Amino acid sequence: MTTKYEALLEKVYEIHDIGKALAVLSWDKEVNMPEAGLPARVQQMTTLSRFNHILSTSDEFGALIEEAAAELDGAAYDSNEASLIRLLRRHYEDNRKLPPEFVARSAEVSGKARAAWAKARATNDFASFQPWLEQVIELCQEQAELYGYEDEKYDALLDKYEHGMKTADVRAIFDAVKAELVPLRQAIEERGTAVDDTPVHQAFDVETQKQFAHYITQAIGYDYERGHLGTVVHPFATSFSRDDARITTRWYSDFLNPSLFGALHESGHAMYEQGTHRDLARTPLARGTSLGIHESQSRMMENLVGRSLGFWQAHYPQLQSLFPEQLGQYTVQDFYQAINKVQPSYIRVEADELTYNFHIILRFELEQAMLNGELAAQDLPEAWNAKMEELLGVVPPTDSQGCLQDVHWTRPGFGYFPTYALGNLYGAQFFETAVSQNPAILEELNQGRTTSLLAWLRENIHQHGRKFTPGELVQRVTGQPLSHAAFMRYATAKYNDLYSL
Amino acid sequence: MTTKYEALLEKVYEIHDIGKALAVLSWDKEVNMPEAGLPARVQQMTTLSRFNHILSTSDEFGALIEEAAAELDGAAYDSNEASLIRLLRRHYEDNRKLPPEFVARSAEVSGKARAAWAKARATNDFASFQPWLEQVIELCQEQAELYGYEDEKYDALLDKYEHGMKTADVRAIFDAVKAELVPLRQAIEERGTAVDDTPVHQAFDVETQKQFAHYITQAIGYDYERGHLGTVVHPFATSFSRDDARITTRWYSDFLNPSLFGALHESGHAMYEQGTHRDLARTPLARGTSLGIHESQSRMMENLVGRSLGFWQAHYPQLQSLFPEQLGQYTVQDFYQAINKVQPSYIRVEADELTYNFHIILRFELEQAMLNGELAAQDLPEAWNAKMEELLGVVPPTDSQGCLQDVHWTRPGFGYFPTYALGNLYGAQFFETAVSQNPAILEELNQGRTTSLLAWLRENIHQHGRKFTPGELVQRVTGQPLSHAAFMRYATAKYNDLYSL
Repeated sequence: MTTKYEALLEKVYEIHDIGKALAVLSWDKEVNMPEAGLPARVQQMTTLSRFNHILSTSDEFGALIEEAAAELDGAAYDSNEASLIRLLRRHYEDNRKLPPEFVARSAEVSGKARAAWAKARATNDFASFQPWLEQVIELCQEQAELYGYEDEKYDALLDKYEHGMKTADVRAIFDAVKAELVPLRQAIEERGTAVDDTPVHQAFDVETQKQFAHYITQAIGYDYERGHLGTVVHPFATSFSRDDARITTRWYSDFLNPSLFGALHESGHAMYEQGTHRDLARTPLARGTSLGIHESQSRMMENLVGRSLGFWQAHYPQLQSLFPEQLGQYTVQDFYQAINKVQPSYIRVEADELTYNFHIILRFELEQAMLNGELAAQDLPEAWNAKMEELLGVVPPTDSQGCLQDVHWTRPGFGYFPTYALGNLYGAQFFETAVSQNPAILEELNQGRTTSLLAWLRENIHQHGRKFTPGELVQRVTGQPLSHAAFMRYATAKYNDLYSL
Repeated sequence: MTTKYEALLEKVYEIHDIGKALAVLSWDKEVNMPEAGLPARVQQMTTLSRFNHILSTSDEFGALIEEAAAELDGAAYDSNEASLIRLLRRHYEDNRKLPPEFVARSAEVSGKARAAWAKARATNDFASFQPWLEQVIELCQEQAELYGYEDEKYDALLDKYEHGMKTADVRAIFDAVKAELVPLRQAIEERGTAVDDTPVHQAFDVETQKQFAHYITQAIGYDYERGHLGTVVHPFATSFSRDDARITTRWYSDFLNPSLFGALHESGHAMYEQGTHRDLARTPLARGTSLGIHESQSRMMENLVGRSLGFWQAHYPQLQSLFPEQLGQYTVQDFYQAINKVQPSYIRVEADELTYNFHIILRFELEQAMLNGELAAQDLPEAWNAKMEELLGVVPPTDSQGCLQDVHWTRPGFGYFPTYALGNLYGAQFFETAVSQNPAILEELNQGRTTSLLAWLRENIHQHGRKFTPGELVQRVTGQPLSHAAFMRYATAKYNDLYSL
């Protein structure tokens, strides 16, 4: 006899399969599709999205969830079944809160705003984008009301990316980061050009970079038997199942960092998906639990592992052997310094490990101000530049290099940005806990291996997928709520040493 | 006000989009997917297929077709609207003739038969595959009854791949081919080793082969702005829209032909899809009208264009410049002979332009005999070898190199094979007509260009998509029904010259 829960699962599998088909279409769009194929691809994706929306918001699906929930009454909180019901209920309610008219209008405005933004950025013409930004802000405000909130409007949006996290908590943590990180940045700046990044700015053959990217991502534990590396303009990771979790990267012929640290970063994301428990497969539990926790995995591989001295002591000889002319004369210490140079910059995606956080804090603060009606679209450039001065000590010469640089504000997606910096903080807190529980992790890392670290991540984080909220997970794993402390301990020690502060 | 036809189109677009999403998933499966991703991919494809089947066989869809048909009553036969209604009606009726139980059973038997076949071929053990072949034959018989037929059982199956074509017609044409082609093959054999294919059997760097494959496929008119070349084990072409029609190929480091002629062959297929009229987009009219006509386009590019002397007089210098050590000492005449060597072989996919037809005629005759109960599965090996002897003058030493070589008979797909050889005949008949209507085609070809040929194909064949049946198209374009005559004129002239007969 089929139980209600089994009947629900059948429907969940169906919705999941269509969602994953959409992910394949999207991946192919970025990696292989000729540009001319875009209009047809958009039609195909729109059709699949519509089916998914209909299935996942139907009264019938809601009834199935509740029937299964009633049948499972009393199941343990951390059981797969109870966790799935919690997640389905939440998504179902959220999805039903946005009327189809709003979703369609959002999509339409976003499409047009994106085109206007691309043009505005290319011509450094903020005024032409301003009316679109106004509409996007209105959509965000409307969305916040539709979702509802208790304390602050921004809570409603943040919750969609970092479920359970409150704006006030994030603000307190970011303020603490600012208080310690600004002085550290200033101290580093006073040391001037103590760190030289010439080694990574040379001519590097792209095919050889690819070879090394394969080598180094495999070295940190990305499983190519369940993965694939593709080339794109804007790198990302995606998964179609735990057994097919892909990474992408881009290649610069005169700069090593984008391919190298991009590949490590995306591997961190993909390894999270590869590590979700087999029993969660084909359900929405089978992925990272939030954007912030996801980012903790990518940042850990990119920075805590991938920008550490011990790791490169093991792997630098291999890189040197592939690029003897470029790197033969540089020691591993030279290389370690080069990949850790701190340099305040205008562009977020080019920022170093430390100053990256300022780029995020700035956006987090401006998003709230715009959402709450305290900052008008037309005043954004000025506010942007003031915050750049305050946090990074530099002011972009143009809006294209300032408030027009990111695509994010062409759609109602306020609340997304903070997850990038939260990832750095979660990552440091997880890493500190892991090392304290198993010191072998650090010893191995100094030999270039991540076996024990990955085992710890699998056990404590990856396998659970989305069973727990980010707040539950960080408490469960580290015994404490999220704080900035571990990140600041890590950053202070590392950069004090690097810059002889 | 929305017309019935517009309402129908909306539903047609939806079904089409899901079908194309399936095609993307299938393409990705062959080109990029790690093997471990297969089970999840099969689930995703099964879910989409089920949706498509439900939508395209629903009573509602049938009613929509009929309502639109009534509304369009009197539309010209060759209008897009009337052509779409004809095609939809036919597919709808065909789809409804196969009960879900039969479709599921077919899929199950095919899956198991395929595994058994792979093992049987690897171990040269026909006996272990025989029970599965018996089941496949039964499925074909059942399918023929479900579809229905007037004259011969085989008609019902052939019609699914080559709509409107009768078995008796194909038999008459193939008999005529045999009557002329067997003596030609024998005459060639008597000339012994007159033709040397050493030039193509050397070490060829794969990356350089890729470079040349891009060059030569572009030279024949494959549009890379609306295409993409991928690497696979079993090459194919596919399209997700006329603006995204892809080719795939494989690379041998010691044999030039598979990548070279494989890429030309698949380009011919993809150019057909790229050439369908924009107004047919997002409907089932937007593809090649039948497998045979499709094959006429691929064979034309592979053989009539790609194995002609004039074409290589223009492009051989480029190939030589990429492979100076391998080809420097060979003239274009040497190369032309090498790529046209006739050599009866056991394996269909390795056969040359002439003897390939025998491989198909053999399968066509054996399929009918099995379908009609005149040949039992257990007697297949013997019958196979006897026909090999009769048609090709060689007998395979093992069943793995004989009746076990193809995957096709692991599923109820009798009727598919003949389209391969029909393609050669259609292709020659189209080509002869094209040249007679525009002699510039041949002049350009001798300069390595296909501009006028492609324009002719676009105008006369490609743009129509599936508006006409293969029989209608060949009559419309060449003024006659399909015959073997053009192919035999072409082949006789070419090989008489090559082998100085």
